[in-house]
Amino acid sequence: MKTNRLDTADADFDERLGRLLDRAPTQDPQVTQAVERIVSDVRTRGDAALLEATNRFDRSAWNSAAQLELGRAELEAAWLGLSAELKAALEQAHARIRAYAERQPLQPFEFGDSHGNRLGQRITPLDRVGIYVPGGKAAYPSSVLMNAVPAKVAGVPEIIMVVPTPNGETNAAVLGAAYLAGVDRVFRIGGAQAVAALAYGTQSVPAVDKIVGPGNAYVAAAKRIVFGQVGIDSIAGPSEIVVISDAGSDPRWIAMDLFSQAEHDEDAQSVLISPDAAFLEKVSDAMDERVTTLPRHEIVRASIGNRGALIRARSLEEAVDVSNRIAPEHLELAVDDPRALLDRVRHAGAVFLGRHTPEAFGDYCAGPNHVLPTSRAARFSNPLGVYEFQKRTSLIECSPDGARVMAKIAGTIADAEGLQAHAASARDRA
Amino acid sequence: MKTNRLDTADADFDERLGRLLDRAPTQDPQVTQAVERIVSDVRTRGDAALLEATNRFDRSAWNSAAQLELGRAELEAAWLGLSAELKAALEQAHARIRAYAERQPLQPFEFGDSHGNRLGQRITPLDRVGIYVPGGKAAYPSSVLMNAVPAKVAGVPEIIMVVPTPNGETNAAVLGAAYLAGVDRVFRIGGAQAVAALAYGTQSVPAVDKIVGPGNAYVAAAKRIVFGQVGIDSIAGPSEIVVISDAGSDPRWIAMDLFSQAEHDEDAQSVLISPDAAFLEKVSDAMDERVTTLPRHEIVRASIGNRGALIRARSLEEAVDVSNRIAPEHLELAVDDPRALLDRVRHAGAVFLGRHTPEAFGDYCAGPNHVLPTSRAARFSNPLGVYEFQKRTSLIECSPDGARVMAKIAGTIADAEGLQAHAASARDRA
Repeated sequence: MKTNRLDTADADFDERLGRLLDRAPTQDPQVTQAVERIVSDVRTRGDAALLEATNRFDRSAWNSAAQLELGRAELEAAWLGLSAELKAALEQAHARIRAYAERQPLQPFEFGDSHGNRLGQRITPLDRVGIYVPGGKAAYPSSVLMNAVPAKVAGVPEIIMVVPTPNGETNAAVLGAAYLAGVDRVFRIGGAQAVAALAYGTQSVPAVDKIVGPGNAYVAAAKRIVFGQVGIDSIAGPSEIVVISDAGSDPRWIAMDLFSQAEHDEDAQSVLISPDAAFLEKVSDAMDERVTTLPRHEIVRASIGNRGALIRARSLEEAVDVSNRIAPEHLELAVDDPRALLDRVRHAGAVFLGRHTPEAFGDYCAGPNHVLPTSRAARFSNPLGVYEFQKRTSLIECSPDGARVMAKIAGTIADAEGLQAHAASARDRA
Repeated sequence: MKTNRLDTADADFDERLGRLLDRAPTQDPQVTQAVERIVSDVRTRGDAALLEATNRFDRSAWNSAAQLELGRAELEAAWLGLSAELKAALEQAHARIRAYAERQPLQPFEFGDSHGNRLGQRITPLDRVGIYVPGGKAAYPSSVLMNAVPAKVAGVPEIIMVVPTPNGETNAAVLGAAYLAGVDRVFRIGGAQAVAALAYGTQSVPAVDKIVGPGNAYVAAAKRIVFGQVGIDSIAGPSEIVVISDAGSDPRWIAMDLFSQAEHDEDAQSVLISPDAAFLEKVSDAMDERVTTLPRHEIVRASIGNRGALIRARSLEEAVDVSNRIAPEHLELAVDDPRALLDRVRHAGAVFLGRHTPEAFGDYCAGPNHVLPTSRAARFSNPLGVYEFQKRTSLIECSPDGARVMAKIAGTIADAEGLQAHAASARDRA
């Protein structure tokens, strides 16, 4: 099966790795222009524009905006209609995602200084958040749980979900997951029009304070436009996995781990790094064998062929150094002693330790969030968590004595900065 | 003195408040185009482009990029040259900002489930960050401390500061503050060219993982362009203060608190809300009297006239509700019992409690960061803190037994999502 083969000992390794990681800019000016029109229309005309865009893009024929909301009874019916096995799996995943999120919330603090001043940090949930869930083929109940659960744990009082239903098709697993997660309201809208409705509000859709969740190029462009009016999560790029393995792993397992990333889309990136050349060949053989079992084998072949790589490194340590340069969304350490390598790992959204921890566990049920930084953003960005649904407020409360101390410091620095009103305001309290 | 006067009892109050808060979009297409050229040039040609742009925009005549770096000795000399009073004030401010930041860092966690799986969250500092410090008139040592200290407390090993020196003028207080805060390297560059150099690296300037700090429209446009390549802090808008006061405050103090915001620039917003109409008049009189004492009185008059407001509310509680709608960067509660109102406050970057706590204390030395969300972003965004210089990595480590439990859950949901490689990868471990 066609893929890229690299060796860290080759003179052109750095250059070839650089090319493999390079992404063309993903913002299409035509998409941006179209989205600007839609966002502006929904902002100005509200429900009327939302209804028109929805009927047009999702090929529906709703007469009124009221029809765009799915009631609690419909969500419950969707949940009850799922198989017992799927319900059990979603419930277990939900409980595990929740248990992990419950370790996260920021705690408030407050303390006093020796002058009687009090300083603190208050933590409160956001008032209302929107969750964008893609519709159609890529409609994933796991994404509903991963976006809604940390918001619930943060204490967000109102969670609004939007999910397009192209050709009127609803996805029962997605609606069931929304029921399970306690999503408050669900609208069957999508695309740029849904993002605009959440950002500015319409007569029917309430304006939110933050919009999270993945989407296509139109959704990403709309999120960029409304950023500032509302908060957004990161703009997700194609998914990535780096697997570091010695010869002790089952090559068939590693092949399928690479495929689990590649099956998402042609731009997904699957990279295996090993110090063992023979092992890389065994994985290559296993890929040839196992790809034939997959319904999505064409996507897998395209992704592995264009953006995948088998990389031989001189050592496991060097393999980690290469991974740090990639700063992948997912990193598997399929070795006997993954903890020995972990300290060397500098950049990764999530690390999967040991041979029994495939990335797929993290996608669904291990507990940590599957919304992770892509495109090297793991150097500076974070997995989605409870933190993203909380906000901090600084608190300062000075005593008359403490204010005298503050006035002297603030006055002196304000003078140096040439800000006389600051200085006077400070010294009024001296 | 001219300002806007509103009353919550007026029929057109909501509309007038909305107009007062409304901002025209701040992205000038001509600025964006010019910045795109500069960023692209520095990205492609590195030091040569950086040197040309610096000489052109800062009216300097450096011959080589090596001259753009200020050495440790120059920073130390700047520090030693400051007055004893200013050094003492900066040292006290530094210690207080540090003491507050030291309460913030996220702690890692790890826990096990009943199946022998381990789940965790690792916390590490960013590798290298850039701090943008404006030069010329608006060069503020306090901004150096507020941006550098949380990065230091987070454990960032390398902090790179850029500060333009137009006409070759350096600001001793800014360089001294960089020395005090332990900034690692300082380059005398600014504008879009400095942001591009930090984002992509040049032969002389190392690429960083995140860029923080305020700047003019060119800097803001450049930060928007490089966002994704590196992390950025929020794009700051004009500064804002809301003061809520009853009749018990000294009107002269409140007048100067409003001015301390207004003196920043003509777009700054200063709003006083009080249930006492007579008190509002007294503050208005005090403003007339005290504005004449300020060298920056023209800026103050413009800001208070265009964007400022004196608002009468029916009660202190209603005053808080109006403030929540504004979601201000700074909120002063100049009342006897500010804690009684605090629970009602939903959105504010920082709250200043009581009559002895002017915003100026928070700008310089109280301890909490002065980099705060503006333009209603306090609904979803945060003060700059240690968190912004750390990153989280999720950890998952399954035992063979635990993997069997995970495989069943993940396999079932993957089947429902039509992702067969995910399902196979999970079930390999069953």
